[in-house]
Amino acid sequence: MKKLINDPSDVVSDALRGMELAHPDLLRVDHENRVVFRRDAPVQGKVGIVSGGGSGHEPMHGGFVGRGMLDAACAGEVFTSPVPDQMQAATAGVYSGAGVLHIVKNYTGDVMNFEMAAELVAAESGIEVATVVVDDDVAVTDSLYTAGRRGVGTTVLLEKIVGAAAEEGRPLIEVADLAKRVDDAGRSMGMALTSCTVPAAGTPTFSLGEDEMEIGIGIHGEPGRRRVPLAPAREVAAMLVEPILADRRYTDGVICFVNGMGGTPLIELYVVYAEVAAILEKAGIGIARSLVGPYMTSLEMAGCSVTLLQADDEMLRLWDAPVVTPGLRWGA
Amino acid sequence: MKKLINDPSDVVSDALRGMELAHPDLLRVDHENRVVFRRDAPVQGKVGIVSGGGSGHEPMHGGFVGRGMLDAACAGEVFTSPVPDQMQAATAGVYSGAGVLHIVKNYTGDVMNFEMAAELVAAESGIEVATVVVDDDVAVTDSLYTAGRRGVGTTVLLEKIVGAAAEEGRPLIEVADLAKRVDDAGRSMGMALTSCTVPAAGTPTFSLGEDEMEIGIGIHGEPGRRRVPLAPAREVAAMLVEPILADRRYTDGVICFVNGMGGTPLIELYVVYAEVAAILEKAGIGIARSLVGPYMTSLEMAGCSVTLLQADDEMLRLWDAPVVTPGLRWGA
Repeated sequence: MKKLINDPSDVVSDALRGMELAHPDLLRVDHENRVVFRRDAPVQGKVGIVSGGGSGHEPMHGGFVGRGMLDAACAGEVFTSPVPDQMQAATAGVYSGAGVLHIVKNYTGDVMNFEMAAELVAAESGIEVATVVVDDDVAVTDSLYTAGRRGVGTTVLLEKIVGAAAEEGRPLIEVADLAKRVDDAGRSMGMALTSCTVPAAGTPTFSLGEDEMEIGIGIHGEPGRRRVPLAPAREVAAMLVEPILADRRYTDGVICFVNGMGGTPLIELYVVYAEVAAILEKAGIGIARSLVGPYMTSLEMAGCSVTLLQADDEMLRLWDAPVVTPGLRWGA
Repeated sequence: MKKLINDPSDVVSDALRGMELAHPDLLRVDHENRVVFRRDAPVQGKVGIVSGGGSGHEPMHGGFVGRGMLDAACAGEVFTSPVPDQMQAATAGVYSGAGVLHIVKNYTGDVMNFEMAAELVAAESGIEVATVVVDDDVAVTDSLYTAGRRGVGTTVLLEKIVGAAAEEGRPLIEVADLAKRVDDAGRSMGMALTSCTVPAAGTPTFSLGEDEMEIGIGIHGEPGRRRVPLAPAREVAAMLVEPILADRRYTDGVICFVNGMGGTPLIELYVVYAEVAAILEKAGIGIARSLVGPYMTSLEMAGCSVTLLQADDEMLRLWDAPVVTPGLRWGA
C-alpha cells in the first residue's frame, strides 16, 4: 500500500487536522465528533445545511463547507457511514431556529443513521429537520450497500444549488423542495480503470485486469454493470452518457459534470469532457454550465463519472451564486 | 497503459478541445498553435503574461489562464517544451502595447525556446519582452533536462501574484522585478510513490519498487536525491521541508503550498499538510496563506511536493486579489 499517511487508523483525524490548518478562514473542526463546521456557524435565520458520509471522497463533503454551500459535514471512517452522534452534533451546531436540511447519499448506513439523528434531535431539542436522499446513479438498481439507486455526482451539484438557496434566507420547506427537484433532475454513471485501497484494509477493494475496466462502478468500488476491455475515451464517454440519456429526457440547460475518481489526472478528464460534449451536441442538448475535476473521489481510484443535471433557470441562477469553500469557490 | 484517452498522439489536442468546451466564458484556444488565450486577450494597457511548457502538468499552465493570472499559455506535447512558433503566437496575441512577461520554468528546452521567441517577436514586431526563469527546486543542482535548479511549485504562486500585479496595470519593469523577487523567495521539493506513463511511450517513465519512494523527484520523473523505503507522512514531510528550510531563511508570512502529483487524492494531501504545518510551527514560522491540491501534476504520478514562499505584504495582497481561471478562482 503506497499512501501518504501515518498510521492507517489515523487517516481521517489527520486529514481533518490538515483541513482545519489549511482553511482557518473558512472552517473549524469539532475533532471529537469529526464534524467540519462553517467557521461562523450557526448563521442566524438561515436554514442549516448538513451533509456527510464516509471519508475517502474528498473534497466531498468537508471541502464543501462554507458560505453558499454546507454549514456542516460529518466525516465517517473511510467508506463508512458516520454515526448518529456525529449527525446530531452537526445538526445542533448549525441550528439557528430556521430548521436543518440533511443531504444524504443513498447508502443504507447513511440513510439509517441520518434518520435516527433527525428523530433524536427532533425529540430532544425540537429541531425541525428535512431530508433529501440523493439517488442518481443509473448504473444499477440495488447494490452492495444500497437499496435503490446509489447517490453519487448529483450530490455535489445539489449541495451547491441548495446551499445557495439557504444562503438567500429561503425557508426550510422551499429549500427541501428544491433539493428534491435537483435530485429528480440529475443522473450519473461512473467507471473505473483501477481499484483503490482502504487504508485500514491495506489491500485493494477489488481487482481489475490490466486490460479491463469496470463500467457503472460505485464510489466504494461496488460492482457496476459490466467489465469490458479497455476502450478509447470516446467509447467510454458513450458508455456513461447513453444510459443517462436513456433514463431521462434532457433539453438545453444542462449542467455537465465530469468528475475524477482521485487517481485520474485533469488532462484525461478534459479529454473525456470533449467526448461528452460531442455526444450531447449530437443529441441536440445544450450545456449551460460545466464542472470538470476530482470533486467526489474514491481514494486513489483511476476513473471518472459523468453527471448531467437538467437545470431550470432558478437552479442555474443558484449555481452561479457566490460560493466560498475549500473545494468550490467563485463569485465572492 | 490505463488512461482515459483516445489515440495517444491526440491527447494534447483532445484535452485542449475539452478545456475550451468546458470554459467558454474564460478561454479560447488557438488550436493550430496550441495556445490557450484569455477570452478577452489582448487586454488594452495591460502587460501580457505568457507561460507554457510541456503538457501533463494540468491545470498548469492552461488552467491558470484568465483574469488576474495568465493571458496565454503554450501547450507542448506531454513533457516536451512548446516550440518558439507557439510562444511567438502567444506573445503577439496578448500584446497591447504594454509589453509581455514570459514566465519560464527552468528546463533547458523551455528556456531556449522562450528566449528564441522573445528575440523573434522583438525583431519582427518590436514587442518588448521580459523573462523570469523559475528555479526553485532545492532537490538537485543540474538534472536530466536542466542546468541549475528545476522550476517547479513556485511557478504556480508566481503566476498568481504576478498576474494580479499586471491586472492592476503595473508597468513591465515592475511586473518583471516582482516576478524575480517571487522566484527568489520560493523553494520547493517533491517526492513520488509511483512513476507515470507518457501516453506516446506507453510504458512507465521509470520504475520504483513496491516498498520504495523517490525523494526530490522532478515533475517529469527525473531522478531525485535518493530512493528510500516507504515512510509515514510525518517523515515524508520532514524529508521535503527540512532541505527547504536549510536553503533559505523563513519567518512569518509564508505561503505554504502542498501540491499533488496527479495520482494522489486530496485526503492524503491534507494529511501531509498537517505534518508540514506542524514542522513550521515548531520552527517558529507562521503560515499566512495556504494552497492544497493537484495544481502542478505529473500525469498520474502518486506523490506530492511542498513549496514555501516567503511572501512580503505586497505579495500577500496580490495573492488575495481576485482571480478567475479554471484552476484557481476567488474574490470575483
